[in-house]
Amino acid sequence: MNVHELATPCLVVDAAALDHNVRTMAAVRPGRSLRPHVKAFKSTELARHVESVAGHRSFCGATLRELEGLAAAGVGDDLLLANETLSTDRLRTLVRSAGAAITVAVDSPETVRVAAGAGASVLVDVDVGLPRCGCVPEDAGALADLARSLGAEVRGVMGYEGHVVGRTDRSARIEGVERSMALLRTAHEAVGGEVVSVGGTGTWDLHERSTEVQAGSYLLMDTHYARLDLPFRIALEVEATVVSSSPLRGWAVLDAGLKSFGMDHGDPTVADWQVFFCSDEHTTIVPVDGGPPLPPVGARVRMRPAHVDPTVAYHEQLVLVDGETVVDTWPVDLRNW
Amino acid sequence: MNVHELATPCLVVDAAALDHNVRTMAAVRPGRSLRPHVKAFKSTELARHVESVAGHRSFCGATLRELEGLAAAGVGDDLLLANETLSTDRLRTLVRSAGAAITVAVDSPETVRVAAGAGASVLVDVDVGLPRCGCVPEDAGALADLARSLGAEVRGVMGYEGHVVGRTDRSARIEGVERSMALLRTAHEAVGGEVVSVGGTGTWDLHERSTEVQAGSYLLMDTHYARLDLPFRIALEVEATVVSSSPLRGWAVLDAGLKSFGMDHGDPTVADWQVFFCSDEHTTIVPVDGGPPLPPVGARVRMRPAHVDPTVAYHEQLVLVDGETVVDTWPVDLRNW
Repeated sequence: MNVHELATPCLVVDAAALDHNVRTMAAVRPGRSLRPHVKAFKSTELARHVESVAGHRSFCGATLRELEGLAAAGVGDDLLLANETLSTDRLRTLVRSAGAAITVAVDSPETVRVAAGAGASVLVDVDVGLPRCGCVPEDAGALADLARSLGAEVRGVMGYEGHVVGRTDRSARIEGVERSMALLRTAHEAVGGEVVSVGGTGTWDLHERSTEVQAGSYLLMDTHYARLDLPFRIALEVEATVVSSSPLRGWAVLDAGLKSFGMDHGDPTVADWQVFFCSDEHTTIVPVDGGPPLPPVGARVRMRPAHVDPTVAYHEQLVLVDGETVVDTWPVDLRNW
Repeated sequence: MNVHELATPCLVVDAAALDHNVRTMAAVRPGRSLRPHVKAFKSTELARHVESVAGHRSFCGATLRELEGLAAAGVGDDLLLANETLSTDRLRTLVRSAGAAITVAVDSPETVRVAAGAGASVLVDVDVGLPRCGCVPEDAGALADLARSLGAEVRGVMGYEGHVVGRTDRSARIEGVERSMALLRTAHEAVGGEVVSVGGTGTWDLHERSTEVQAGSYLLMDTHYARLDLPFRIALEVEATVVSSSPLRGWAVLDAGLKSFGMDHGDPTVADWQVFFCSDEHTTIVPVDGGPPLPPVGARVRMRPAHVDPTVAYHEQLVLVDGETVVDTWPVDLRNW
């Protein structure tokens, strides 16, 4: 099937770019030194592909549904909920039914009790500078003690320098990682365990002293991460159709809008025209100086999302293409909660 | 079931507020003078509820899937695709299988040919000031002539003053509607037909001279429309759980973020705290002067979306509540394309 036969809007994945990204990462962070983060793509089939091509067998997710889906499909043997949860029953069911080891991040006595009650192992989640989850480093040891006293295995620590991963200046990322990891090392000394789980796509190669990096965006990428000096290629685009176009009026309209793109990092972009604005199911584009005329009604236009994670979460499937040929279709089966 | 037993994040609809909104609209725009726009809620069951309570039998949607779902469920007898489409085959199948009349917006010779080829009736979509779909008014007559020459019924005109509906100053909305409708009247004279389909929630009561208003946001509302002096109440919130909280640290974290909210109109809000920022599955909140202390881990917090349409499109269901009691659950079955 030709990609232009697909109904639009539609997520299109360049199989060669994806393959490049998988291999580039695995060459530097092979096997268990990478824990691919499924929140960025929410597809069991893509996770399975990464496992089979690159040999990573540890995965993490941000929701219970992501882990439940991986476990049910038998993808990975070491699954981390890189997030706090209070859903004891669901976590217990997951622990009992999964063929994989189940670990969960904890940052409070409440979340420790949930994890221990469910029979999950834990990583103590430490605040390393991003104002989100994570205990203050001084509390990490006490949480580990509580977990052990309740019978839970404490595998180590987790610290996500999310305030650093998007900085475009590599030296600023290096400096930020060092500051964050100094905090995490202090906590790790008090916690013990073998795992130090950190980072993201923007800091993928800045973590020699940690045992594993959590990265997911590197697989599909977006224009926000493309501003950084990373070796990963944009593999994800949205294929849209021009539904209205008039040189007289001065703009054309694509059939993909606010319900096709996560908008928190800004508008999507197109190669040859300027995005004017997005509305629910439309994006209006205008010509640029020296650029081509507006595309005609019926033409296909590729759009690049600014933020991959909340973009994928709107869609039902990822369509893999080799040039214009559709080579596979992977359901986005892990969305919602 | 109590609402606090639901897994979070979860869309919660206040049944009394929804009922107020349905009746307030129907009192001013009864029956066919309102064409509820399903793009704002994407739920067949909510459309069926509006039909049964208020008696509206004309509906519109922005996607073929929305119309296909309504038609399959037998909701409404007059369905308008208030958007341009190039999908002749799907439109033809819809026309043949639907028990309802099917009409589609057209703004170019190409979209006229698609509509006529599929056997649909048409409204000529006219640019009345929003830089999106819609022909220039001078072209409307020729498009109507083309449609009739191809055997399509021309029911009238459509003009959406989307650049006006969000203005907070009512007199500015009145003035904007008058300017837009003057353009539409010129086009209507050239097009003919009985239907003049216009407007949205923000201009719901400013269209005495049009035959029908397209409005959908009035049913659930959001904080963006709540800035206007409208009689509709916010009926939609996202129920979230506090997964991390520390007075020492100075913030708490909710388990609903960028994948729970359309973000183009800005951050969601919470009643008693300030939203600091959203990330994929989290929102960090901080105290406000004179406000309550941070909520503890495990507490439930209601969040209000800034833009209803792309918020609902992330979720699988709408949970109706009367106070804390769950009274019904309606699937968001019309999302995607």
